[in-house]
Amino acid sequence: MQQKLKLAIAGIGNNASALMQGVTYYESLHQQGVKPEEWPGIRQSVLGGFSVFDIEFVAGFDIDERKIGRPLSEAIFCGENNYPVIVANLPVGPSIMRGIAAEDDVAAVAEALKRSGAEVLLYGLPTGLQQQAEWYAEAALAANVAFVNCTPEKIARTPEILARFTKQGTALLGDDLASHFGSSVIHKGLLKLISDRGLTLQSSFQVNLGGNSDFKNLAINPSSKRESKMNALGGVDAGKVEVIPSGGFLSQLEDTKIAYFNITAAGWAGTEVVFDAKLKVQDSSNAAGVIIDLVRVAASQQRMGLGGMSQEVASLLKSPGM
Amino acid sequence: MQQKLKLAIAGIGNNASALMQGVTYYESLHQQGVKPEEWPGIRQSVLGGFSVFDIEFVAGFDIDERKIGRPLSEAIFCGENNYPVIVANLPVGPSIMRGIAAEDDVAAVAEALKRSGAEVLLYGLPTGLQQQAEWYAEAALAANVAFVNCTPEKIARTPEILARFTKQGTALLGDDLASHFGSSVIHKGLLKLISDRGLTLQSSFQVNLGGNSDFKNLAINPSSKRESKMNALGGVDAGKVEVIPSGGFLSQLEDTKIAYFNITAAGWAGTEVVFDAKLKVQDSSNAAGVIIDLVRVAASQQRMGLGGMSQEVASLLKSPGM
Amino acid sequence: MQQKLKLAIAGIGNNASALMQGVTYYESLHQQGVKPEEWPGIRQSVLGGFSVFDIEFVAGFDIDERKIGRPLSEAIFCGENNYPVIVANLPVGPSIMRGIAAEDDVAAVAEALKRSGAEVLLYGLPTGLQQQAEWYAEAALAANVAFVNCTPEKIARTPEILARFTKQGTALLGDDLASHFGSSVIHKGLLKLISDRGLTLQSSFQVNLGGNSDFKNLAINPSSKRESKMNALGGVDAGKVEVIPSGGFLSQLEDTKIAYFNITAAGWAGTEVVFDAKLKVQDSSNAAGVIIDLVRVAASQQRMGLGGMSQEVASLLKSPGM
Amino acid sequence: MQQKLKLAIAGIGNNASALMQGVTYYESLHQQGVKPEEWPGIRQSVLGGFSVFDIEFVAGFDIDERKIGRPLSEAIFCGENNYPVIVANLPVGPSIMRGIAAEDDVAAVAEALKRSGAEVLLYGLPTGLQQQAEWYAEAALAANVAFVNCTPEKIARTPEILARFTKQGTALLGDDLASHFGSSVIHKGLLKLISDRGLTLQSSFQVNLGGNSDFKNLAINPSSKRESKMNALGGVDAGKVEVIPSGGFLSQLEDTKIAYFNITAAGWAGTEVVFDAKLKVQDSSNAAGVIIDLVRVAASQQRMGLGGMSQEVASLLKSPGM
Repeated sequence: MQQKLKLAIAGIGNNASALMQGVTYYESLHQQGVKPEEWPGIRQSVLGGFSVFDIEFVAGFDIDERKIGRPLSEAIFCGENNYPVIVANLPVGPSIMRGIAAEDDVAAVAEALKRSGAEVLLYGLPTGLQQQAEWYAEAALAANVAFVNCTPEKIARTPEILARFTKQGTALLGDDLASHFGSSVIHKGLLKLISDRGLTLQSSFQVNLGGNSDFKNLAINPSSKRESKMNALGGVDAGKVEVIPSGGFLSQLEDTKIAYFNITAAGWAGTEVVFDAKLKVQDSSNAAGVIIDLVRVAASQQRMGLGGMSQEVASLLKSPGM
Repeated sequence: MQQKLKLAIAGIGNNASALMQGVTYYESLHQQGVKPEEWPGIRQSVLGGFSVFDIEFVAGFDIDERKIGRPLSEAIFCGENNYPVIVANLPVGPSIMRGIAAEDDVAAVAEALKRSGAEVLLYGLPTGLQQQAEWYAEAALAANVAFVNCTPEKIARTPEILARFTKQGTALLGDDLASHFGSSVIHKGLLKLISDRGLTLQSSFQVNLGGNSDFKNLAINPSSKRESKMNALGGVDAGKVEVIPSGGFLSQLEDTKIAYFNITAAGWAGTEVVFDAKLKVQDSSNAAGVIIDLVRVAASQQRMGLGGMSQEVASLLKSPGM
Repeated sequence: MQQKLKLAIAGIGNNASALMQGVTYYESLHQQGVKPEEWPGIRQSVLGGFSVFDIEFVAGFDIDERKIGRPLSEAIFCGENNYPVIVANLPVGPSIMRGIAAEDDVAAVAEALKRSGAEVLLYGLPTGLQQQAEWYAEAALAANVAFVNCTPEKIARTPEILARFTKQGTALLGDDLASHFGSSVIHKGLLKLISDRGLTLQSSFQVNLGGNSDFKNLAINPSSKRESKMNALGGVDAGKVEVIPSGGFLSQLEDTKIAYFNITAAGWAGTEVVFDAKLKVQDSSNAAGVIIDLVRVAASQQRMGLGGMSQEVASLLKSPGM
Repeated sequence: MQQKLKLAIAGIGNNASALMQGVTYYESLHQQGVKPEEWPGIRQSVLGGFSVFDIEFVAGFDIDERKIGRPLSEAIFCGENNYPVIVANLPVGPSIMRGIAAEDDVAAVAEALKRSGAEVLLYGLPTGLQQQAEWYAEAALAANVAFVNCTPEKIARTPEILARFTKQGTALLGDDLASHFGSSVIHKGLLKLISDRGLTLQSSFQVNLGGNSDFKNLAINPSSKRESKMNALGGVDAGKVEVIPSGGFLSQLEDTKIAYFNITAAGWAGTEVVFDAKLKVQDSSNAAGVIIDLVRVAASQQRMGLGGMSQEVASLLKSPGM
């Protein structure tokens, strides 16, 4: 097997916790002799030449004082992070460095990326910080490190940025993760089934609830996320279908996400068909299950000198760059 | 538009009620000037040259004394039938004739079919009457009337019977309806989604409840229906997935069917994913929405002199003949 | 039977629609000879000497130009009102008059109340208009008309106002309706059951969704309603129980309200107990089913010259005055 | 604290497993210094002078060869038992002895009870073995050991048997456990709420599902259990309410029980109210949480020489003897 993928992370939130713990979890299954086809919850045990556990965490950036200076294995449980403890013995990991708060900080982060030997920078700050996302992308370009954008900020969809990555031979994958098994993919599948079978949709809604910081932010400012989720459903009638990204912040749920679905349709002779559903899922596992594929593709591109966006991963993103 | 499809029905149950009322319902939409693309709950407004309402009911057979001798428009509300009243003014329809109770009755039914001018015989007796199904198929053959088998009895799957229909140029479509929007199609879709996304199925079940005579029969004798429904899910692990065709007879539900679903799976790092759902649907609308396509294809075949089974309708059947 | 109750309404919203249509609905049951014990959905067919249908609508006030000048039977379907049409033939009702927009308008409304012969003024403006509620209470006092406050504004709980009504012998019932069968009463009942049986509550939430103007307002400004609903649960641990008055505005729901509940508890040996529920109810029927009792008690008090608050109706109110 | 309660058990099924593991679980909480008011899932930490963990298992009887001769701490995981492992270190417990298969065995069991020093015999064989229940009651009488009947067999409701226990000063508590937090208590509570609030019940059902041997038996032979559960609802209209004790055997559920509830009612003006719920609970924890109180009351009675039935525990039983 080739050398491990060297990964840097900007934003040490629940996704970083799910990723680091999961990688360690699968490594321990491997060491116990469990065969890859029996590892639960992954699409591809090997991708781009990397096994799920071939990840080495080499750098981390954040601006939360509770995380800066602590090793990654501790920082993932600090601040508002509330992903559960999945594995007992984590590798220590790199010390978290101060992230970019102003344009002046870009050079220092670029320098740190070079020193760390990182091949990929995973960008996962809270939603809505377009400026910061651009700064981190600049740092990645300066350090020739592949950039993976988990958020809806426009990076891979900004033609000038994408062109610069492509020209330089630096990978750029984004924007916005499609969840591993999220409410959009389920809702879309159900609405398609209704339509395929010849039923007539009358109304449908989806309401998401959670207790992590995403849900706190989204309850206040849902509009861009609502739009992104409506798009993910693929051309539905907005007069009939509604999506509520965060129906409210329920601290007791911690990193668990609950989504309620309702679909009302008309069948033969106009008789009513009603479908009600509830999804309960670990929110950040839903992200990490997709991130693991994106970072492996990014590293593989990077080693081959293929810059820019790979259409191979378009289905893993809500708004893929082109 | 061509001449109306002349339809005979064996078994005047809820499906016959849903079919006759639905046909009248769509005809009245048509007369009110509603465009076909706005008719709710149908897959194809025109199929085989027939509009949804191009059906003329020309004969009906049953052995229930409460139905024999009454016009179809009344018989569909008699006995244990409990499909709701959907339309106010039904055409009277033919008087229900005594159906086949013994082999001796086959000739009389064949004669009645000829006299009625029927092009298609829709077979929909209660599940489990293999002998009766064969007798009605004989009558159809003798009268050169296409035969559509809604039940799991083996007619289109019996090679000798299929061969005789094919040779004579008489259409034979069956066996066993795939519901318009039933629990099998939903369950299968959800399990496929779980698998496509790389989650690991841990366990799943489906429990169906209803208040019509099907559910009374199935609660007592579920095995053949369970097998058919497990097959419909397409190669699932029987140690992990279970289907209960009738969790019990709930008379209050009448012809409404309720199905509960549960799926438990493992996502990234083995974290739990739980999906719970409930479907509420008019059971016999679910049948009629598929019957309407089968009888139109059968009549179209018949007029063209194409005998036997049409693979065009295989997806509308749980166990299509070949 | 005594003379009909003469009712005036301030705020011609869905509650007024539910009330007027319901009264007409029960009157028609009565005229068809249906016995009171078979009338659906009411607690007491006769209360304070009034049957459910002994209500005469004599005046209505609103500031919505789409309602002013129209008869009550039309105004209840105007503006943002979306309670369904329940009965076909409504009595015309009084023309809606311009309501109080400033202190100067109080005298005119008092005068109109006197002219109309109203015995009770039902106050049901949108939540949050404390000033308007006080002005309408002044008008009621001036006209010696009983006042029923459906909203959480502090009227019956303001000691000086209550004292003035009591002294003058004018009834004052409030504040804030306890719904007929609402999410608070169900949630409280379930939490009590958990506690009575000796289970240990771990966490619980309640999320409400709807498509009427209440849910639009509450999604933006939930805090006072959340507090009122938490109080209605009766001394629960706010670290364990959360209430979301409006998880979002779903226009497709119109006046239907959907509430989702979840309760997680520990049973014997700490094993988990999970209870999930969904309530679907006509939101304004939930109000009208309680209003009908409040206005009858108010009129009965008024006729007997009993001023102020009656403890008989305390259970019908979320925050009864004392 | 007084001397521990010496308990014998007939029928080493899931209930015995839940009881033994739970007692050990609470003892370990006690030893860790957790205060009784923080022990989850119990009604009374001390009852009849006994703490929850003051139970010593002194004898066990079964006819399953896989259990006979093994210590209780192993036997509770044998055969078809599938209650989960809750605690790691169980006390070994007594060796399981051969139980009563014929009348001739009564004397030997009585003798074994005497030798063991048991104060209480907990009877928990599979439902439907009236003869065996009577034999064990005879053995208890002969040994002067209190008898607690967890099953619907008629023991405490058989006047002659109750009279003999009462006369001899031997406690007899039964028949049939009311679950700690079971579907009957929830369904009854919800139906009562509907009625109290003045809504009109239209229809309701309850369907139970599970994967332990009880659910296998009940799916085949539901009638006595259905009757007992209908009675537990307290005078409901059987035309409107239906209970299905076992909608089917779902082996994947193991000892987990799932119950689905639906209630449809009419509110104000006949508008529809729909309540849907799902309960998920550890079935045998539901039994053990009640057994713990019954055996403590029985032992307390026994020590005081009070024979027969104690009305103090009537609410813990579905069909209390009188």
